[in-house]
Amino acid sequence: MAKQLGELVKKAGDYAGTAANTGIALATAGIEQLTTLAVYRCPCVTSKELGCNITQIGSPKCVHFLNLGYGLSFIIAPAIALFVFGMISNPKMWKLLTGCNHKQRRKKPTWTYFLWTLTEVSAAAMIAPVTWVAIALLDGRFYACAVTAFPYDVEHALATYPTCEAVAAAKTFYTSDSFNDNRSFSQFLGWVVISGCLIVGLFLFGYTQCSSPLTYYHAKYYRLYKGSEEAEFDDEMSKKAQIDAESNVRKFMEERREKKEWDRISTVYEFHR
Amino acid sequence: MAKQLGELVKKAGDYAGTAANTGIALATAGIEQLTTLAVYRCPCVTSKELGCNITQIGSPKCVHFLNLGYGLSFIIAPAIALFVFGMISNPKMWKLLTGCNHKQRRKKPTWTYFLWTLTEVSAAAMIAPVTWVAIALLDGRFYACAVTAFPYDVEHALATYPTCEAVAAAKTFYTSDSFNDNRSFSQFLGWVVISGCLIVGLFLFGYTQCSSPLTYYHAKYYRLYKGSEEAEFDDEMSKKAQIDAESNVRKFMEERREKKEWDRISTVYEFHR
Amino acid sequence: MAKQLGELVKKAGDYAGTAANTGIALATAGIEQLTTLAVYRCPCVTSKELGCNITQIGSPKCVHFLNLGYGLSFIIAPAIALFVFGMISNPKMWKLLTGCNHKQRRKKPTWTYFLWTLTEVSAAAMIAPVTWVAIALLDGRFYACAVTAFPYDVEHALATYPTCEAVAAAKTFYTSDSFNDNRSFSQFLGWVVISGCLIVGLFLFGYTQCSSPLTYYHAKYYRLYKGSEEAEFDDEMSKKAQIDAESNVRKFMEERREKKEWDRISTVYEFHR
Repeated sequence: MAKQLGELVKKAGDYAGTAANTGIALATAGIEQLTTLAVYRCPCVTSKELGCNITQIGSPKCVHFLNLGYGLSFIIAPAIALFVFGMISNPKMWKLLTGCNHKQRRKKPTWTYFLWTLTEVSAAAMIAPVTWVAIALLDGRFYACAVTAFPYDVEHALATYPTCEAVAAAKTFYTSDSFNDNRSFSQFLGWVVISGCLIVGLFLFGYTQCSSPLTYYHAKYYRLYKGSEEAEFDDEMSKKAQIDAESNVRKFMEERREKKEWDRISTVYEFHR
Repeated sequence: MAKQLGELVKKAGDYAGTAANTGIALATAGIEQLTTLAVYRCPCVTSKELGCNITQIGSPKCVHFLNLGYGLSFIIAPAIALFVFGMISNPKMWKLLTGCNHKQRRKKPTWTYFLWTLTEVSAAAMIAPVTWVAIALLDGRFYACAVTAFPYDVEHALATYPTCEAVAAAKTFYTSDSFNDNRSFSQFLGWVVISGCLIVGLFLFGYTQCSSPLTYYHAKYYRLYKGSEEAEFDDEMSKKAQIDAESNVRKFMEERREKKEWDRISTVYEFHR
Repeated sequence: MAKQLGELVKKAGDYAGTAANTGIALATAGIEQLTTLAVYRCPCVTSKELGCNITQIGSPKCVHFLNLGYGLSFIIAPAIALFVFGMISNPKMWKLLTGCNHKQRRKKPTWTYFLWTLTEVSAAAMIAPVTWVAIALLDGRFYACAVTAFPYDVEHALATYPTCEAVAAAKTFYTSDSFNDNRSFSQFLGWVVISGCLIVGLFLFGYTQCSSPLTYYHAKYYRLYKGSEEAEFDDEMSKKAQIDAESNVRKFMEERREKKEWDRISTVYEFHR
């Protein structure tokens, strides 16, 4: 039984990449739903407001622009945020950049090499933002809010409800027909984005695999080796750092030190100054 | 008792392929129902809109196209997505492609060999998408929405409800007769797709089995051997990678290294550059 | 107590064939009821539509054909699907077919032998589909929908309900008299199918038993032996496959391999190419 569980875990390891991507996608979708529940409300437009003749102090000048900006910002801004997180959390990016101004061997990486790595890292970081955009389009309300001039069926609703806010609170019954059509169109766009990205991704991935100098099992061994090396290197570095630190500190503490020496160790030491 | 349970597990193992396929089909059906509940709503068309004379800002130009695209995208796009996932998760695909531009022996696989393997992999990856299409057709609403000009019985409904949205909310009573007929036709198509694919699949599978050079028990032994080899190879590779990594890392750490050497190990190493 | 339980399990084992068949039949009936609840709805026909003069875009041309196809597809298509599953899951089928194009001894099985086995396998695979057809006929709605021109009593109903759909929603009260007559006839057909198949099956089974060269206990011993042999063979094959795989993989991994060798083991190996 325990052996079969072990087998299962190892099997899952083979699909680690896929699993991680699926996890990212699901987490993105979950966050999206939560965000939407908590803060999303398409701005309410009355016929009076549409003429861009708002006189109240501090109110945005043209309301259609507000709707457009509001809807698009819910689609694009989180995608940008997710992209930045993806870039930051990729060690490849920082292996390339860290200290690249002072590298001696190869005297800075060549531009093609630099751009190639950047493309690779960007591609990996695009999974979460594309998922966000796709799910936002599938949900449809963001896009519909962005492109519809009159999101709520105000004419019928205002007869019943006193304020714009009350209409929005009862929005399941009073979104306008063109809003709903745009929402459907958005879902159509969402499916187009999903299937398009997957097909392009499949072909690109296939091509990069084709041009790899290694074959399937050789590449698998290389991946296994890289993982082991990374883990082992971390271990050895920790051990060595511990030993070096111990010996240095003991040496300082084992005899009586003068003020001059205490001063020296009390400065803020940084390499780049 | 434990022995009988073991027997049962082993028995289930014999039907692993069938079980996996059934699992894929059931998961597909489940996802479909969830997706539908969450986001599906056939666009509502009023007689005014059907003439493609929509003047409101941002509304898609011709509404019948919207219905068609909306309905078909719910049938086709997820099928494409499932197909891509099926292709990606098949190791055979990547055994064939990885490094195929640099293979030395056989100097790239021959085209017939390549196409044959691709066909095999595609056939295996078609199970989930075909299930999706079949279940979408059996559900019927996607197809009916795609081909029906007037999905809701607006004439009767608009007398009672103020907006298209309100009609859609009460849609169980007010989908039009032609929508319902198309839904029935879609279910008919669904059964045709299911039985057709199964019959064709049975004959193709039978033919490939017939032309196998191995007989039943010989093929079973070959399958068992291949499974054992794969598991054993994974084990040995992990062990070897661990040992190699340890010796290399120790060698690097055991003496004091210069900046040049630290630089060298901090680059992003890739074979294909 | 434990001994009596063991006796019971062994007793049940004697009736394994009957139990499996009963299980298949019950599962079929259950699936049928679920499917029907979820998606079945006989297309509604109004007198206006029956003249095949439907002018609305995308609607199927002749509605009586729709009724016929719809009703029959719910009876026949699932039966086909169940038949295919029955054929696929029978090892006898694949023992016969696998590699039959390359068999050396007997140089392909003789045609009478082939047809006889196919008949046997088909007969075993017919249990689930026949159950489905019988239960579908007993339910009656599929057959009645297929053969009745006017399934709903539209004349009476349209006075009360505005649309065909509303009639269908209240269909328990407004199915037409001819629909109900056809439903009764369908139930009659269902009983005929059930009793007919059971009688024919009893006589055929009796005849095959009569013409068996073995007697009752001899046949029972043969069944027991076959089961033991199958289990033992599986065990031994697994063990041998494990040992062979281990020795081969160890041999590959014990020395440093060149790219050419890694290439060779990374190809998709298939016998029939």
